[in-house]
Amino acid sequence: MSKLKIEWICRNCGFRSDFWSRYYWRCPICGSPLEIEYKKSFEPESGRGMIRYSSMLPMKPEKNIGEGDTPLIIENIDGRKILFKLEYLNPGGSFKDRGSSLAVYYAYKTGYKTVVEDTSGNTGISVSLYSRIYGLKTKIFMPKTAPEGKKRLVKKLGAEVVETEDRARASEEVLKYVSESFYVAHTWNYLYVLGASTISYEVYEEYGPPDLVITPIGSGGLFLGLVKGFEELYKLGRISRMPRFIGVQGYNVQPVYEALKGYKEAGEDSSLADGIMVRNPPRLQEIIEKIRLYNGEVILVGNSEIEKALERLLDLGFIIEPTSATVYAAYEKIKNKIDEKTILMPLTGSGLKI
Amino acid sequence: MSKLKIEWICRNCGFRSDFWSRYYWRCPICGSPLEIEYKKSFEPESGRGMIRYSSMLPMKPEKNIGEGDTPLIIENIDGRKILFKLEYLNPGGSFKDRGSSLAVYYAYKTGYKTVVEDTSGNTGISVSLYSRIYGLKTKIFMPKTAPEGKKRLVKKLGAEVVETEDRARASEEVLKYVSESFYVAHTWNYLYVLGASTISYEVYEEYGPPDLVITPIGSGGLFLGLVKGFEELYKLGRISRMPRFIGVQGYNVQPVYEALKGYKEAGEDSSLADGIMVRNPPRLQEIIEKIRLYNGEVILVGNSEIEKALERLLDLGFIIEPTSATVYAAYEKIKNKIDEKTILMPLTGSGLKI
Repeated sequence: MSKLKIEWICRNCGFRSDFWSRYYWRCPICGSPLEIEYKKSFEPESGRGMIRYSSMLPMKPEKNIGEGDTPLIIENIDGRKILFKLEYLNPGGSFKDRGSSLAVYYAYKTGYKTVVEDTSGNTGISVSLYSRIYGLKTKIFMPKTAPEGKKRLVKKLGAEVVETEDRARASEEVLKYVSESFYVAHTWNYLYVLGASTISYEVYEEYGPPDLVITPIGSGGLFLGLVKGFEELYKLGRISRMPRFIGVQGYNVQPVYEALKGYKEAGEDSSLADGIMVRNPPRLQEIIEKIRLYNGEVILVGNSEIEKALERLLDLGFIIEPTSATVYAAYEKIKNKIDEKTILMPLTGSGLKI
Repeated sequence: MSKLKIEWICRNCGFRSDFWSRYYWRCPICGSPLEIEYKKSFEPESGRGMIRYSSMLPMKPEKNIGEGDTPLIIENIDGRKILFKLEYLNPGGSFKDRGSSLAVYYAYKTGYKTVVEDTSGNTGISVSLYSRIYGLKTKIFMPKTAPEGKKRLVKKLGAEVVETEDRARASEEVLKYVSESFYVAHTWNYLYVLGASTISYEVYEEYGPPDLVITPIGSGGLFLGLVKGFEELYKLGRISRMPRFIGVQGYNVQPVYEALKGYKEAGEDSSLADGIMVRNPPRLQEIIEKIRLYNGEVILVGNSEIEKALERLLDLGFIIEPTSATVYAAYEKIKNKIDEKTILMPLTGSGLKI
């Protein structure tokens, strides 16, 4: 099999199919999440944004609306360098735009006319935005408890909002539309992992590799993307050692912590972290493997810690949403126990949407 | 008088004072808006954001929270290249951050502990954001009709919001605090003109000079800043000719159009353009001079045209507020009458704040 061919592959059962075959989501044989195999080389193109890393991605979307190339602000805190990556300044207000720019383009290129997705918020805005630029119709399934501002934005972008009883029900409802529409499935879709990997490439080019990465874990797309990005740079000989990776979850929903430790940890309410309440991350096994491989851990946080971190990040000039403050809340909890001197924290979603 | 000294100057009566003297707003002799005289050289520093153009500015703020270096998206439309400058992706959601990063730093360096400002919205968010990072207390006077989302954001940033009957009353009320607090006075403050000039430097470095610039005119700070930026590049021999400049106002509030033509033009309601309803732009005379000098004009637009432009810009992937769509509404009105092939349109404010 040629290394040049781009294919979806299932690491679990060996299933393979052509990249443009529409088998993009879940293995039709065993139900595992799929990955993509393709040739990579780190040859950044001139110009700005994600397009710069086309040689590291399986495709090059036709449209660029300003995704990627987010500011990297370096603060000296506690004798360390904290690298804040302002992902909330992406065009749709979150890091999800990196994945959506790929996934929605894939839907467009494979001939779909409609797009459906289940989401607690940011992905709905992001998917609706990219669907709109490619002229696709969009239906977004959101729990009725999702923030009003996010629902309004999805509607403003021209998408239909279907409100469901809760997040789980949104995931059930959306499945009814999977045969006729493109189901983005961002918690499964590997294009969201690859989208997030471009954050690592940007940090590498602008600063170099950090010692430690602290990132929220909902479905794990951001976490796995950051790991993937640095792994590729390592494989290609661009960096000589991997950063350590710490994931952050809320006490309310802690599947990665539980899988790692074998028990649940009691703690205060963490409802402010609504953006990372994913009960069954499809790539849970891989998340656990990567945490173990790179000597990482999972830190749990609660509302009072998130609120304090949010205020501290506002002091630094970052207008973000509560879920995005979890990384700094986690840092506060572990800062006296870690040795790393440079720490990357992506700030994931905008606080303008209130 | 040494050319190296940084001074506030009044072009009208000749008043001069040291840059750090606190005479930053209005000439104490004749009441005209002040300018700043200082030595410039176009020697971009390495790194990203406004800091890159320190050699073109009278000071270099200590803090950088991601202002400037906004994406430039080039679209082929009607056989032309339209350069959209995504100013709404600044950290506070609007181009005002460029001016605020300078003006609030000036307040901090001259020893003020509190900052006051009157605004219809975006400047309030921007000033509150920069005041917060420098630890200054802030009081924002806003008309009660200002968008709720903007008021909420100002409060979230820790500033006090004082609601007034209308915009004019906000400007009266704020004056009561001028002796004890730093009055930002963004419609007067030359630092907002200089902040906006960095947009021209970025466009010049990334693309080159456009043939035409279309920009909204409220107080005229953005318009004058863009003119100023290209003028400096021209004076320094970086560009060989000046772009043409078109300003856009709404039918409801059209002081520049009126001053230019000698009469008011009747048209539909333009209340959607709430961000540019400035009845008495302090630098009106200079705006008129520049429009005449560079063969420009003022185009008036109304709500139905703004709404149509807003939808079109969403189709292109730009989540902006209605005021920001006025530039494209104006373009639609004149596109068959202009010859220019490359047109710069700054998109000024984020549409996430709804």
